[in-house]
Amino acid sequence: MKILILNGPNLNLLGKREPEIYGSNDFESYFEKLKGEFPAISLEYFQSNHEGAIVDKIQEVGFDCTGIVLNAGAYTHTSVAIADAIKAITSPVIEVHISNIFTREEFRHHSFISPVSVGIISGFGLNSYKLAIAHLTEVK
Amino acid sequence: MKILILNGPNLNLLGKREPEIYGSNDFESYFEKLKGEFPAISLEYFQSNHEGAIVDKIQEVGFDCTGIVLNAGAYTHTSVAIADAIKAITSPVIEVHISNIFTREEFRHHSFISPVSVGIISGFGLNSYKLAIAHLTEVK
Amino acid sequence: MKILILNGPNLNLLGKREPEIYGSNDFESYFEKLKGEFPAISLEYFQSNHEGAIVDKIQEVGFDCTGIVLNAGAYTHTSVAIADAIKAITSPVIEVHISNIFTREEFRHHSFISPVSVGIISGFGLNSYKLAIAHLTEVK
Amino acid sequence: MKILILNGPNLNLLGKREPEIYGSNDFESYFEKLKGEFPAISLEYFQSNHEGAIVDKIQEVGFDCTGIVLNAGAYTHTSVAIADAIKAITSPVIEVHISNIFTREEFRHHSFISPVSVGIISGFGLNSYKLAIAHLTEVK
Amino acid sequence: MKILILNGPNLNLLGKREPEIYGSNDFESYFEKLKGEFPAISLEYFQSNHEGAIVDKIQEVGFDCTGIVLNAGAYTHTSVAIADAIKAITSPVIEVHISNIFTREEFRHHSFISPVSVGIISGFGLNSYKLAIAHLTEVK
Amino acid sequence: MKILILNGPNLNLLGKREPEIYGSNDFESYFEKLKGEFPAISLEYFQSNHEGAIVDKIQEVGFDCTGIVLNAGAYTHTSVAIADAIKAITSPVIEVHISNIFTREEFRHHSFISPVSVGIISGFGLNSYKLAIAHLTEVK
Amino acid sequence: MKILILNGPNLNLLGKREPEIYGSNDFESYFEKLKGEFPAISLEYFQSNHEGAIVDKIQEVGFDCTGIVLNAGAYTHTSVAIADAIKAITSPVIEVHISNIFTREEFRHHSFISPVSVGIISGFGLNSYKLAIAHLTEVK
Amino acid sequence: MKILILNGPNLNLLGKREPEIYGSNDFESYFEKLKGEFPAISLEYFQSNHEGAIVDKIQEVGFDCTGIVLNAGAYTHTSVAIADAIKAITSPVIEVHISNIFTREEFRHHSFISPVSVGIISGFGLNSYKLAIAHLTEVK
Amino acid sequence: MKILILNGPNLNLLGKREPEIYGSNDFESYFEKLKGEFPAISLEYFQSNHEGAIVDKIQEVGFDCTGIVLNAGAYTHTSVAIADAIKAITSPVIEVHISNIFTREEFRHHSFISPVSVGIISGFGLNSYKLAIAHLTEVK
Amino acid sequence: MKILILNGPNLNLLGKREPEIYGSNDFESYFEKLKGEFPAISLEYFQSNHEGAIVDKIQEVGFDCTGIVLNAGAYTHTSVAIADAIKAITSPVIEVHISNIFTREEFRHHSFISPVSVGIISGFGLNSYKLAIAHLTEVK
Amino acid sequence: MKILILNGPNLNLLGKREPEIYGSNDFESYFEKLKGEFPAISLEYFQSNHEGAIVDKIQEVGFDCTGIVLNAGAYTHTSVAIADAIKAITSPVIEVHISNIFTREEFRHHSFISPVSVGIISGFGLNSYKLAIAHLTEVK
Amino acid sequence: MKILILNGPNLNLLGKREPEIYGSNDFESYFEKLKGEFPAISLEYFQSNHEGAIVDKIQEVGFDCTGIVLNAGAYTHTSVAIADAIKAITSPVIEVHISNIFTREEFRHHSFISPVSVGIISGFGLNSYKLAIAHLTEVK
Repeated sequence: MKILILNGPNLNLLGKREPEIYGSNDFESYFEKLKGEFPAISLEYFQSNHEGAIVDKIQEVGFDCTGIVLNAGAYTHTSVAIADAIKAITSPVIEVHISNIFTREEFRHHSFISPVSVGIISGFGLNSYKLAIAHLTEVK
Repeated sequence: MKILILNGPNLNLLGKREPEIYGSNDFESYFEKLKGEFPAISLEYFQSNHEGAIVDKIQEVGFDCTGIVLNAGAYTHTSVAIADAIKAITSPVIEVHISNIFTREEFRHHSFISPVSVGIISGFGLNSYKLAIAHLTEVK
Repeated sequence: MKILILNGPNLNLLGKREPEIYGSNDFESYFEKLKGEFPAISLEYFQSNHEGAIVDKIQEVGFDCTGIVLNAGAYTHTSVAIADAIKAITSPVIEVHISNIFTREEFRHHSFISPVSVGIISGFGLNSYKLAIAHLTEVK
Repeated sequence: MKILILNGPNLNLLGKREPEIYGSNDFESYFEKLKGEFPAISLEYFQSNHEGAIVDKIQEVGFDCTGIVLNAGAYTHTSVAIADAIKAITSPVIEVHISNIFTREEFRHHSFISPVSVGIISGFGLNSYKLAIAHLTEVK
Repeated sequence: MKILILNGPNLNLLGKREPEIYGSNDFESYFEKLKGEFPAISLEYFQSNHEGAIVDKIQEVGFDCTGIVLNAGAYTHTSVAIADAIKAITSPVIEVHISNIFTREEFRHHSFISPVSVGIISGFGLNSYKLAIAHLTEVK
Repeated sequence: MKILILNGPNLNLLGKREPEIYGSNDFESYFEKLKGEFPAISLEYFQSNHEGAIVDKIQEVGFDCTGIVLNAGAYTHTSVAIADAIKAITSPVIEVHISNIFTREEFRHHSFISPVSVGIISGFGLNSYKLAIAHLTEVK
Repeated sequence: MKILILNGPNLNLLGKREPEIYGSNDFESYFEKLKGEFPAISLEYFQSNHEGAIVDKIQEVGFDCTGIVLNAGAYTHTSVAIADAIKAITSPVIEVHISNIFTREEFRHHSFISPVSVGIISGFGLNSYKLAIAHLTEVK
Repeated sequence: MKILILNGPNLNLLGKREPEIYGSNDFESYFEKLKGEFPAISLEYFQSNHEGAIVDKIQEVGFDCTGIVLNAGAYTHTSVAIADAIKAITSPVIEVHISNIFTREEFRHHSFISPVSVGIISGFGLNSYKLAIAHLTEVK
Repeated sequence: MKILILNGPNLNLLGKREPEIYGSNDFESYFEKLKGEFPAISLEYFQSNHEGAIVDKIQEVGFDCTGIVLNAGAYTHTSVAIADAIKAITSPVIEVHISNIFTREEFRHHSFISPVSVGIISGFGLNSYKLAIAHLTEVK
Repeated sequence: MKILILNGPNLNLLGKREPEIYGSNDFESYFEKLKGEFPAISLEYFQSNHEGAIVDKIQEVGFDCTGIVLNAGAYTHTSVAIADAIKAITSPVIEVHISNIFTREEFRHHSFISPVSVGIISGFGLNSYKLAIAHLTEVK
Repeated sequence: MKILILNGPNLNLLGKREPEIYGSNDFESYFEKLKGEFPAISLEYFQSNHEGAIVDKIQEVGFDCTGIVLNAGAYTHTSVAIADAIKAITSPVIEVHISNIFTREEFRHHSFISPVSVGIISGFGLNSYKLAIAHLTEVK
Repeated sequence: MKILILNGPNLNLLGKREPEIYGSNDFESYFEKLKGEFPAISLEYFQSNHEGAIVDKIQEVGFDCTGIVLNAGAYTHTSVAIADAIKAITSPVIEVHISNIFTREEFRHHSFISPVSVGIISGFGLNSYKLAIAHLTEVK
């Protein structure tokens, strides 16, 4: 059982950006914790600020993994290319967001990713990732 | 620890409506199963086709329960009254949907509930409810 | 053969409201006349100002009657809940209006009911109801 | 008592177009049947693919017939000229459609004809025509 | 001289909801004070979270009272049914709001109630009700 | 010096349509009067309810007349074909309207003809035609 | 206690414009009556057809009067400059309208003044001014 | 017989602005020529860059002149105040433009003046003014 | 193998209209050349300025030819009737344009023809026709 | 070398309005400082709350000064008249704003001034004026 | 004679993605076939999922090749950067699509590429590429 | 004191692209000149056609430089990712453009960068960069 966590632009700044608000933990630490909670699963983590690199990665893993947990960040709202990649592959994708995107700017209320994903989990902090993995492991 | 599952209009037809597609289990059966999975929690279930009754219920439980898992059904897209009730209470609300609402009609892509909820879980079948409860129990 | 005539908000005021214009006959009188014209059919009549009560009624009769003749009044333009109820049941629904809604305010030109109904009959006064029943009886 | 049935573009293809779906009866056969059902009425039938020819016909009969049953087809959604002709004449016009136009493409939801017609009957197959004639004969 | 104060959804929470902001007085207390200021008038008070119940009440009192002071709350922005009820009755209706709705979310800037009311008083706290009653008593 | 007056759909009904309002003079009578006022000009008159016939006529006279006075009626608002014909010819076109189109329905406020005409004269009754001819004769 | 009544364009025509409808009283007479009703208040009245003069006046009195009762007339719908002036001063402003602006043309439904005013009173005839003054005197 | 020609902002620059294109004649010269062509009429001319001054002028002459020929320039597209002044007076107003406004920027295609004017003459150079006067003199 | 080239309004002016730009060859000459290049194909050519005539022609040939190469000209952007005709027939239709319609006015960017055609070839001058025929001959 | 600084409505309140935020310096003091920094340039300063006065000023200096530094304030978003004045003159205009207008209300994101200015400098506090002058002096 | 075929995101999945529908041939095989059909032309092929890489490639070859046949895939609808690159180079670009983009989702109907391309060929399967090359070779 | 000049897509073509218009100087030459004018500042220059590379660079320098002068080119109008990067860092960003973007296509009038930048300088040719640096050096 193999699951990819795929993070989009600026999510590599977690822990560095406004630590008094977001805490001083970076995503890598959280990822280690997640691996501890799901020892039976082969969890991979990839982050890129490049839309094309995210498309490349989805194509690479998307035909033989159990699922992709995707936080496309800003590309959620602008990338048809990522949405097309999701449609082209066979593995299921779950869209996650750390914050509740519907409390933010109007342009963040539309997602190109949502209509091609299994479902959306938005607003539960880093726990959004864990809920997505929990669903993938239970359903499989 | 007390959690209310609150279902809106037409969700009482689960099990009766197109059983070859949705299965022949009604929500009550699923609710019994859920109670088995979360024995430590006092789970309550309420369903109504009346917008006003949903507002009444939110007001009734919303000042002293751990959280509300709300699938407002059609009222998700039309009810400012329910959204205002959520803003007025102190308990957190999680918006859930059985289907992925972003793969459906355009008018279902807008939710009055989302901006006043903690977060959204949409598209995971009945499992959406369980993920919401899991989050409430972990965070508390 | 069983047909339900289902009237939405404010249609109970027919006969009381501006009688010099709309006449002094209430809908109940018209309903009696209709029953006389279709003696072979079991005609039922229900009116409510409550969206939820209309949903309840559709669910109650919608799995075993010949058809529903629905004038949802103001809810025609605002109720996704009623539209969802119509989609969930198995009996056919015909949308009727006394006036021609396309000669009225812009917001009355959109109907959530139309796309889930068999068809629409609008603008023929109380005769709209009779035409709808005539269609149901001929087609069956 | 004289009634004109006026059909717009492409309605002459009924019976030829996808006969396994629409049946192999053309409108002419249906028209003969209709004449049989309303022996007391002088029924005329006219079809054209030309917007101007439809305007011409409305002007020709529109000052002395009992009514016009108009299925303007595609011109329903684009022709101000036909709507103006209807406003200029004195005979009442009933707008009919074979299919429920509100279940079709977005641009078919707007009709220039509706606001200048007595009423609309849409979605009852060829029976839409009969219901319209029934109304005209009852009201007169 | 009889005046009805009619409050819509969530207005029953005044005094309970964020008392450090809105104060700890509920509407009932304010209503008692109002009765003291207008001893010559028969003041009635009704609140409901149900759209249909508000329509019912407007129909019940709307043909023989001096006026209705209506704060429809969230239904201001979504209810065609309430607006239709106001159009159907003969008593004048004044729309009031405690807060200035034009400083709030965009969707609160549109009111279905305004075009069918005598006028609008919005933004003066609970004093909005008193100003409305003052107008009704002066004009009569 | 040759000028064509070109009238679009339904303008042939002048004098027949609501004579108590529009008077009982048809356009032909007015045209005779116009010829009397401009004896030095060869005035031609053409009317059609057919968009294509109007395009045909513009092409026929548009390369060698002094100007075209065009009241395209309903086609003003829907015909790109007529606008394209005007762009293709060399004679100037003046757009005229009997009524002030900006006091009528919203969809009549847009004209495909205006941007390709020399200018617009709208709202002066039949005198709009005379003002247009006056301009053409003065400028030439 | 000093209150300014500030009237915008064309409000100086009251009494002159269609007197059979609006009555033959000009605003000056009404203003005298108002002064009689509020003898303890120093009431000032200013009217101008010039947007800039209204801005000038707001700046002049806006830092030391009890309040401004502003009927900006047509500038309500077009003037960002007046709205900015209101934001810049310290005295509260109440927006009033003689007619109910929501029963008039669509472009009158938007007000640049509303979001920067304390509140809105619209539709009560000249009494709108008195209600506004009553509020200012009670609250102070 | 008294007619006012009323010009809005920047029209005082005619003759000064790009003389190689617009010619070196200012409006005053043209006005002298116009007076020569209509010796029987008392022609007045007024220009201002101030919206308020145009409203003032319309109010001043609008109850006893034969008509106003108004080129409101830029205020055509932004001034509700001028439109309201036109509605308030009794003299007829004709809207004129030197250029064809429908060949210019999108925002110039909408006029607040058009719906309250008798009619529109746009695109005939300075001759637009003469056509307007000709109409007023013929109709009176 | 039979292919129809079908040209809409104003395309008959090629060669006559601005010959210094478009060249002095009319479409008939080009058509002769095309026939020379595809000697094995029975090529027919039809042009009309009438929407209805284009619908008639599509119906006439559309059930037994190899394909239709359609340049609907202005009707591309306004004709639902032509689109409906294309949907009703069985022969494939290719939409062609001489110019690149996406470099022209906004209203030319929408085509009713595109969604019901096999494909679109736009911007290659008269060569657009040849490419369309090449495709039809290769695919068959 | 002559440069005009032209300020629109409410900018005369600088130093008086919320001094704890904007500082207690008025624009006049800043203007003196500016003159000190550009001793070789003849700097003029003009402020008005009147749209017409700004148009007048632009016309007065716009044919012989080196440039105009224009902060049109609220008129930036509503004045076609000022934009037309800028197009009519020969001196270049630079649009400046103290605050970053794109972080403010939606209606402030559109400027009628921008398309007719040389360029825009927005968001640098009072330094925006200095940067504009620096550009004018360097380029000349 | 040198032509570049430039494919955007996800087009590298041809042959792998749903082979029962799209066939099991990848683009490389088709490219070999194309080279065989145009032996006289130096054909190059480049594909990338990276918007920036496509811009880089256009810049690299765009000043000295005969033409570029560009299928920008998803970037067609979102990339201003690619459109700007096309405007900056001197070689002509032809936009191609395998499917008819006008039968797909609404957001695919708009192309940033179309207005800066020579023309568009959409809907002819892989043959779209061949038609584009045919045009470039014939025109050159 | 360290300032980064960051250029987006296609800005590397300056000097190569239409040199008769833009001059034959590339940005590198201008950059050398800039360094000469600000000898006390450590100026860095980076250009990329890749959105992701621009995000990477902003993250790399954005926590310890004096400021970033950003001309994001086409990404100005499409990149939420770059805007998010700017919000995440601590160094101030100034948005610059060589041309006045408000005189260009409609889609260039919206910038995702503007609301997260200190300010905007647009339309001053290459001098836009110098003005931005001047501001950063003066303010620091």
